[in-house]
Amino acid sequence: MLLDSINSPADLKKIPEEQLDALAEEIRQVLITKLAAHGGHVGPNLGTVELEIALHYVFDSPTDRIVFDVSHQSYTHKILTGRREAFTDPSKYNEDSGFTNPDESVHDWFNIGHTSTSLSLGAGLARARDIAGDHYNVINVIGDGSMSGGEAYEGFDVIGEMGTNFITIFNDNGMSIAENHGGIYKNFAALREGNGKADTNLFTAMGFDYRFVREGNNVHELIKALRELKDIDHPVVLHIVTEKGLGYAPAMLHKEHWHWQKPFDESTGLTIHHHELLPGEKFESWSSVTGDWLMNKIKTDPRFVALTSATPDVLHFDEQRRKEAGLHYVDVGIAEETAVAMASGLAKNGAIPVYAFEGTFVQRAYDQIIQDLCINSNPAVLLDFESGAYGMNDVTHLSFHDIVMMGNIPNLVYLAPTTKQEYLAMLEWATTQRERPVAIRVPATRIVEGEEDTTDYNELNKFDMVRKGKDVAIIGVGDFYKLGEQVADQLHEQFGLDATLINPKFISDIDESMLEQLTNDHRLVVTLEDGQLQGGFGEHVARFLGPTDVRVRSYGLERRFVDRYNPAELLEANRLTVPQITEDIQALLSL
Amino acid sequence: MLLDSINSPADLKKIPEEQLDALAEEIRQVLITKLAAHGGHVGPNLGTVELEIALHYVFDSPTDRIVFDVSHQSYTHKILTGRREAFTDPSKYNEDSGFTNPDESVHDWFNIGHTSTSLSLGAGLARARDIAGDHYNVINVIGDGSMSGGEAYEGFDVIGEMGTNFITIFNDNGMSIAENHGGIYKNFAALREGNGKADTNLFTAMGFDYRFVREGNNVHELIKALRELKDIDHPVVLHIVTEKGLGYAPAMLHKEHWHWQKPFDESTGLTIHHHELLPGEKFESWSSVTGDWLMNKIKTDPRFVALTSATPDVLHFDEQRRKEAGLHYVDVGIAEETAVAMASGLAKNGAIPVYAFEGTFVQRAYDQIIQDLCINSNPAVLLDFESGAYGMNDVTHLSFHDIVMMGNIPNLVYLAPTTKQEYLAMLEWATTQRERPVAIRVPATRIVEGEEDTTDYNELNKFDMVRKGKDVAIIGVGDFYKLGEQVADQLHEQFGLDATLINPKFISDIDESMLEQLTNDHRLVVTLEDGQLQGGFGEHVARFLGPTDVRVRSYGLERRFVDRYNPAELLEANRLTVPQITEDIQALLSL
Repeated sequence: MLLDSINSPADLKKIPEEQLDALAEEIRQVLITKLAAHGGHVGPNLGTVELEIALHYVFDSPTDRIVFDVSHQSYTHKILTGRREAFTDPSKYNEDSGFTNPDESVHDWFNIGHTSTSLSLGAGLARARDIAGDHYNVINVIGDGSMSGGEAYEGFDVIGEMGTNFITIFNDNGMSIAENHGGIYKNFAALREGNGKADTNLFTAMGFDYRFVREGNNVHELIKALRELKDIDHPVVLHIVTEKGLGYAPAMLHKEHWHWQKPFDESTGLTIHHHELLPGEKFESWSSVTGDWLMNKIKTDPRFVALTSATPDVLHFDEQRRKEAGLHYVDVGIAEETAVAMASGLAKNGAIPVYAFEGTFVQRAYDQIIQDLCINSNPAVLLDFESGAYGMNDVTHLSFHDIVMMGNIPNLVYLAPTTKQEYLAMLEWATTQRERPVAIRVPATRIVEGEEDTTDYNELNKFDMVRKGKDVAIIGVGDFYKLGEQVADQLHEQFGLDATLINPKFISDIDESMLEQLTNDHRLVVTLEDGQLQGGFGEHVARFLGPTDVRVRSYGLERRFVDRYNPAELLEANRLTVPQITEDIQALLSL
Repeated sequence: MLLDSINSPADLKKIPEEQLDALAEEIRQVLITKLAAHGGHVGPNLGTVELEIALHYVFDSPTDRIVFDVSHQSYTHKILTGRREAFTDPSKYNEDSGFTNPDESVHDWFNIGHTSTSLSLGAGLARARDIAGDHYNVINVIGDGSMSGGEAYEGFDVIGEMGTNFITIFNDNGMSIAENHGGIYKNFAALREGNGKADTNLFTAMGFDYRFVREGNNVHELIKALRELKDIDHPVVLHIVTEKGLGYAPAMLHKEHWHWQKPFDESTGLTIHHHELLPGEKFESWSSVTGDWLMNKIKTDPRFVALTSATPDVLHFDEQRRKEAGLHYVDVGIAEETAVAMASGLAKNGAIPVYAFEGTFVQRAYDQIIQDLCINSNPAVLLDFESGAYGMNDVTHLSFHDIVMMGNIPNLVYLAPTTKQEYLAMLEWATTQRERPVAIRVPATRIVEGEEDTTDYNELNKFDMVRKGKDVAIIGVGDFYKLGEQVADQLHEQFGLDATLINPKFISDIDESMLEQLTNDHRLVVTLEDGQLQGGFGEHVARFLGPTDVRVRSYGLERRFVDRYNPAELLEANRLTVPQITEDIQALLSL
């Protein structure tokens, strides 16, 4: 294999250009084999094999700095920069992250996993170069959906003014995670049709020079174009047209489905499930329940609007549903700020917007949640998926901060269901009341069946005391309620202790009257939350009870970034197991 | 006066069009008189008098919805929608806010004070209209700097696809708060020069139709153009050219200075100071100290870069300094996300970036601080100005959340100086160490002189125990250290009690060893912070000491939005006065 000889970009440059097509084929096969066994971003990486070969063939990384937007499409770059074995040797498949990572290689400039930041990061690299009087190239690779995030435009704008060497590769594959959305895509289509010429041009309007390569999967065309741009003295966009999923038929056919995939059977393209469904068995998830509920609402109440920022699968809205929902479905693209502000506008104007997202991404709309939504107290509903220890475990995709973030914003009610029934009751209440914005923390764990929930959520911040005991009270937040229940059972079994067990449901405030009441016959209150301890729910309880004689022991995740962790190990490291918590309680109560 | 007859847009419509110039002059004089007495956004409002007359002359508010971006330029709109007396009657000058406010009028759709949100909010109004089958107009007014925030582009993109009635008025006055920055302004200049025609057009590239009015302060031209757009069936931008500050000579001459002004002498344009400087007296502020220090650094160390997002005055960088700093000064426009990501890129590439901002705005870059900066642990320095009770007091400009936000992000060290000497020592350390991002909470209060600070900040999270006492320890954060000192003095005077007094300096973590030590001879720990209590510093202390016998009483601001409050009253409402705190301590210690 040609690939065997490549341990660095310098090795790549030794290969004659006419052999690069063969190399691209080798890499593509390596990617398919690893992805089938390991899972990952299939479509984006298959579409950019030639681009990344061409980049390293023409430029001199790491002197020339290449920044990948989102960096989920950097696998070929990794293969070419000394990390080949993480793709060719199954025993090393887990060695490298799915994103660029400066700890892995000097060819990677940043840990990146959120979109539309590459121009702004690159602007910093470029200005640092300019003040140092250096003259290398700064290159960023953007596209595959990341053109819809506003920060990209801020970056274009700033670099457009800087007027210095900056090369933006716009990888136009006609897709986001789902289909592309937005007015800009008309301009991109016009530019594609006009072979780089159109009545107007977004990039030149932002102050960039502009070049076009129709054959973005032709390594020779790319090399030619990049050679012309190398050492250019001003900002330029190279617009290339590529095919997402190129080389793997299923991924070319179903581009959205194949954006990211779990392990699959290479010959059939079928996902490998660890648990095969039995005949007649229906797989229910928090997402599927949400989608069913919301679609039914849309059909029966014309005020409902489902909102997503490019991840309709979170809502279980497939193409059929999106079509059926019509104007009642909005995909703003990867643009969380706009999604929140739009939800506020919808609510203000009489609609009932439900915006669902993955927790890690909604951090981008912190200001919009405070300003556009909560100061205005418009009744939009936010559904936070995948937060906590059981969510995505890449350091760039953690969501441990949702309780710190959403749980501390004035006017926002943040709810944490423990069962499907509670979740549905919360959804009903949130979309029926017209007073305030409500967010719901949808667990990242498997769906749990429970009793019917008849809570009156209009009575804000009223915790549910499920078991009344004494001495110790355990408050288990959301998916950690179960953990609290197990600890209570263990205390009973081990020490004959009847612990009070509380399901708070409301996690953006505390039930002062219930906590007050606990001070009568409790010596200890324990809080359990599946999120960062510092700044979270448990600390509110500790602060409220701080002036009293009741002791408080709060459990949650340490304030620390972790990468590709094992959830069980992470919980144990934070003393979040039943034996550990029981042991602590035993010590605190001197049992 | 024509104005006397106008209590609603309907009244305005009764005035013959030929008298509107006279009306504009009346309004302009009313604005100048009020602004001289009261202060406010001078330039933006003087530039948009004709536009707002024309909007209400042509459209039917509130059926037609008009959304003002930032909404600092909505004064004429307020005058024309029943709130005239707040501008003409000095006894009512304080009745209305400086921003749109739905509590004041049905003609106001949102409380807005942060930039670039009007398109996204309007997109929500428009979609709610469309699903209800209604056909009124949705209009937004943007410009005066707000075109640099990325959310505006997300909004254009979404509306460009919606393809429904949406009218964007782009008020092009050639200015942001300071001069405009960015590649897009070249396109705007080309469009102005070409009378609406240029090689490329940012707005049509985003999917909007486009019209141009050169005479944006000519009410008749505006009315003509708006009449043509009324009830249009697709998104359109009306690009108008106005003069910021029109009608008041000083404001036309010094546009940046007159963007917002304190009360001034109308005849001379001089600011009215409550405290006149004596001859030879130098006025020092946290900003002036920062600017002096940073300019000196830039001159002596070529790695330093000063960053701002359109508020160079925070850094005390006047035009002379900006010029002098050259490549070492970057104004990204109102684009906080890009400022943070760019700072990360600068730091990664060997520069020493110092980004200064007003706390209320940095909320927009929460995700960038987490992802682009802190996960990557690049040594950029963030200076947070104007946070806490003494900052801006409009509900849209509060910054009570900075400790909750910045104090809880992993890898970020958040420091709170109590004196100028501590601040300078923190700046030196933050820009010398190359390990991690550091943020400093610059007080919103007057600068305080103190002793030389010889702290070794490399020893992270080490609190400074200024007085060693017993029974009660008081931890005063940043500008509230002084309050802690006063309480300690009061306790001594009143009860002969020697309280321990602690200046934490580090507020993103706790000094566990010192807190541990306190448990030996203290019964109570009191924390004082000038920010939201819930999620803040005091709660971390309460959580850490929760399992011990030491009581904790934490003070801070209630989790609540407040508008145009009096700081002293706000503090009293939160029991943040010396007598209140002393009384609480007395009760808790049974003195």
